[in-house]
Amino acid sequence: MHRFTFFSKLLRQGTTIVSEKEEGLASHKLLLQSGILSVSSPGTFVLSPIALRVVDKLIAFIDYKMSEVGGQKCLFPTLGRSQLWVRSGRWEKFGGEMFRLKDRVGRSLCLQPTHEEEACEFVSSLDIGNSVLPLRIYQISSKFRDEIKPRLGLLRCREFLMKDMYSFDLDVRAAEKTYDALSNVYSDIFRTLRLPVLRVAAEGGLMGDCHSHEFHCPLAVGEDTLSVCPSCNEAVLAANADSRMCPDCGLDRQTFKSVELAHCFLLGDKYTSNFNVKTTTQNGRKILQMGCYGIGVTRLLAAALEHFTASLVKENPPKELRWPSGFAPYSGAIALQKDNARDALSTDELNGVLAHFMELPSTSNSPTSGSTFFAGLLPRGDILVDDRSRLSLGRKLLDLRRLGVPWILIAKSRKGSVNSEYELVDVNRGGISFTASLNDVVAAFTRYDFQIPLPDICDHQYSRLWHENDTSR
Amino acid sequence: MHRFTFFSKLLRQGTTIVSEKEEGLASHKLLLQSGILSVSSPGTFVLSPIALRVVDKLIAFIDYKMSEVGGQKCLFPTLGRSQLWVRSGRWEKFGGEMFRLKDRVGRSLCLQPTHEEEACEFVSSLDIGNSVLPLRIYQISSKFRDEIKPRLGLLRCREFLMKDMYSFDLDVRAAEKTYDALSNVYSDIFRTLRLPVLRVAAEGGLMGDCHSHEFHCPLAVGEDTLSVCPSCNEAVLAANADSRMCPDCGLDRQTFKSVELAHCFLLGDKYTSNFNVKTTTQNGRKILQMGCYGIGVTRLLAAALEHFTASLVKENPPKELRWPSGFAPYSGAIALQKDNARDALSTDELNGVLAHFMELPSTSNSPTSGSTFFAGLLPRGDILVDDRSRLSLGRKLLDLRRLGVPWILIAKSRKGSVNSEYELVDVNRGGISFTASLNDVVAAFTRYDFQIPLPDICDHQYSRLWHENDTSR
Repeated sequence: MHRFTFFSKLLRQGTTIVSEKEEGLASHKLLLQSGILSVSSPGTFVLSPIALRVVDKLIAFIDYKMSEVGGQKCLFPTLGRSQLWVRSGRWEKFGGEMFRLKDRVGRSLCLQPTHEEEACEFVSSLDIGNSVLPLRIYQISSKFRDEIKPRLGLLRCREFLMKDMYSFDLDVRAAEKTYDALSNVYSDIFRTLRLPVLRVAAEGGLMGDCHSHEFHCPLAVGEDTLSVCPSCNEAVLAANADSRMCPDCGLDRQTFKSVELAHCFLLGDKYTSNFNVKTTTQNGRKILQMGCYGIGVTRLLAAALEHFTASLVKENPPKELRWPSGFAPYSGAIALQKDNARDALSTDELNGVLAHFMELPSTSNSPTSGSTFFAGLLPRGDILVDDRSRLSLGRKLLDLRRLGVPWILIAKSRKGSVNSEYELVDVNRGGISFTASLNDVVAAFTRYDFQIPLPDICDHQYSRLWHENDTSR
Repeated sequence: MHRFTFFSKLLRQGTTIVSEKEEGLASHKLLLQSGILSVSSPGTFVLSPIALRVVDKLIAFIDYKMSEVGGQKCLFPTLGRSQLWVRSGRWEKFGGEMFRLKDRVGRSLCLQPTHEEEACEFVSSLDIGNSVLPLRIYQISSKFRDEIKPRLGLLRCREFLMKDMYSFDLDVRAAEKTYDALSNVYSDIFRTLRLPVLRVAAEGGLMGDCHSHEFHCPLAVGEDTLSVCPSCNEAVLAANADSRMCPDCGLDRQTFKSVELAHCFLLGDKYTSNFNVKTTTQNGRKILQMGCYGIGVTRLLAAALEHFTASLVKENPPKELRWPSGFAPYSGAIALQKDNARDALSTDELNGVLAHFMELPSTSNSPTSGSTFFAGLLPRGDILVDDRSRLSLGRKLLDLRRLGVPWILIAKSRKGSVNSEYELVDVNRGGISFTASLNDVVAAFTRYDFQIPLPDICDHQYSRLWHENDTSR
């Protein structure tokens, strides 16, 4: 039975009062109210077991997508020597955004906000040969930035989870191939999440002048502004736009607030020449070409949660969370009757029901699409059993719907009845319920592609962009 | 094909020269020489993709064992507010071992070396009810301690991975039950790893005066000394022993150098009263009883690697790594002939061989023992294909043996031959090879229990202790 999670073992919902004055994200307030997220200090959070389940699913998915492009996962240290950063010239440039400290003997250290320097130093030490190129190493770890104003929950933190890949190629052409491969895999990731994300040209910023693109999710609370041509759909950052008109179509661009979720940088030899990252070729030693590819994992979670909550829940402000398809903390929930109800399940009956979820079809051997990936990954027993003995079914349904678990099986005893049908609630479609066999229930719990309907965005123009950009259907 | 790892995509072995003067761990030197581990600054390391595979397997195993005792995984922040630590009185007590820093507005923060304060604050904020007790929350994350002398690689770092669980119970008796449950699961973990570990009574140290036990692995390079009665086998820390004689048997205790891998603390209400962690009972509000349970994950990896390398490799100093059964970076390797060799596999033949490893038996539904756990967990394709096109089979075997992959399949083409037998090398048994069908090979790659023979410890007394303590056989 330990393979399932029981609600009575979960942290009970807290009674945190969220200040009405708190700006912004409806989903963030719901996370705080339910105790899924807890503030530790400004811009730092405790991820509760429910939040961590979602983060772990996101990480598994990103790992899978990185493996598709030959990514090898490693772990760089958080503590960075000042020497590395002085060498790259960024010890000064990062300014107040970088957390700095000294060790007990007075050596300067920082909490590394990114790892170009460390990656170069590591690869340089390995004295790699040509045959390992393209080399694509990445990590998923906590990063630190001393934000002037941490805000909007997980959207702008001082401590956050980030995936950062560093690529090393023999020449510019090969590095551009890597850049295209990673740009495409990023688009794949957002498409699988069914998140409307636009790729926009950007400036290098702290990374130095270089070819660079950002991936933006339109969100009303975003801090950036996108400028999008209504005809050719080309998007640019409003801050970088020379004019409001599209240079190709001559039409006025429309603007949307947005949040940056990922970035790609073609860094060239900016860091590799500094750190002497070379390989041996027939023509002697050659400096490698580098790229850097980041995704804010906790930020992605926050943006996706806000997007789906805002677009799928009709109440304003919403009272229920909505997760991207396949990334809810549980793929389904089983609501039990009160212990003393006449139609409460016996232990044997409950075990019979749970056994059904242990016999899910096993991993497909060659996952090719997002949905197949999940079919393989689904942890058997990724199901929450609401076994709180003294609460009514109504209260349980309320709590489970608030949590945003997409499917709820209402499990009442059918003693002596030949009727083997159960009531199944489709939370994402407004909580409509219908009768289903246990096989139907298992199918529903694992049918991610159809779990969340297409986003129903108020803004028509934006909605059209999203539909046209989504080539997965 | 991406589900397998190809050696040509791995970081090539570096040529790092390890100073002969470097003290200690033979396994650590091998890790550095092969580029599996790389020093970033004193006491901080880069975990290469190979090292991270092992860490990830360890983490998955620990997660599984924690779920067996109702552990719920969360993530606490690394950055800690000084106020929390001042409140518990440990801001001063931790002294120079705690990394401290200030944010841009001058607030004092630390890199939290442990999370009793944060856990209390979190649980207190949730206003939990009785029904969620016993509450057992844990995390696996990077911890930081400003060691005076980081040494022996992953055994004593400034940045390391630790699993820390915090338990909350209604009363002392319930807290003691949690303490016993966690002590037992720790013993289980070490037994599954086949690591000789002794449980010894300890003092609370920085945690405060409390009931406390440490788990020690005898290692010649260890910084602690165990004092063990040769008759009743009771072990104590030599530093805590009142006399060299066993009080029960009257015999002189023997001493072994050892490394602490885990600790359990029954903290009582030391922190919970300070942080007002209460629950509502029929008799009003009641302070909860707390426990704390840590395992050094990267330290455990280092100790296990050193133990098995030192005890299983006959050369001194050893030239090959040995991993605990089931935790090698790959469950097996396939060595291909040079591309231009007459008996090199064709692509079709290679795919045929690899397909065999895609069809491993699927997850068992109710894992009960370590080996069954692994049978379920084994990632399909947890196999390294040595496809370096221009290297001889001899060189590949040498590299794979150095890496400590337990089984190596030598894959030569059998064009037109009805003989479907292959050569399989059993690395842990000194590299003896025998003929095997592909089904035999699959069985060997997944037969963890028999993969590594029992440790062959030089010290007879110590060996006897280990055999007697190991009740798993």
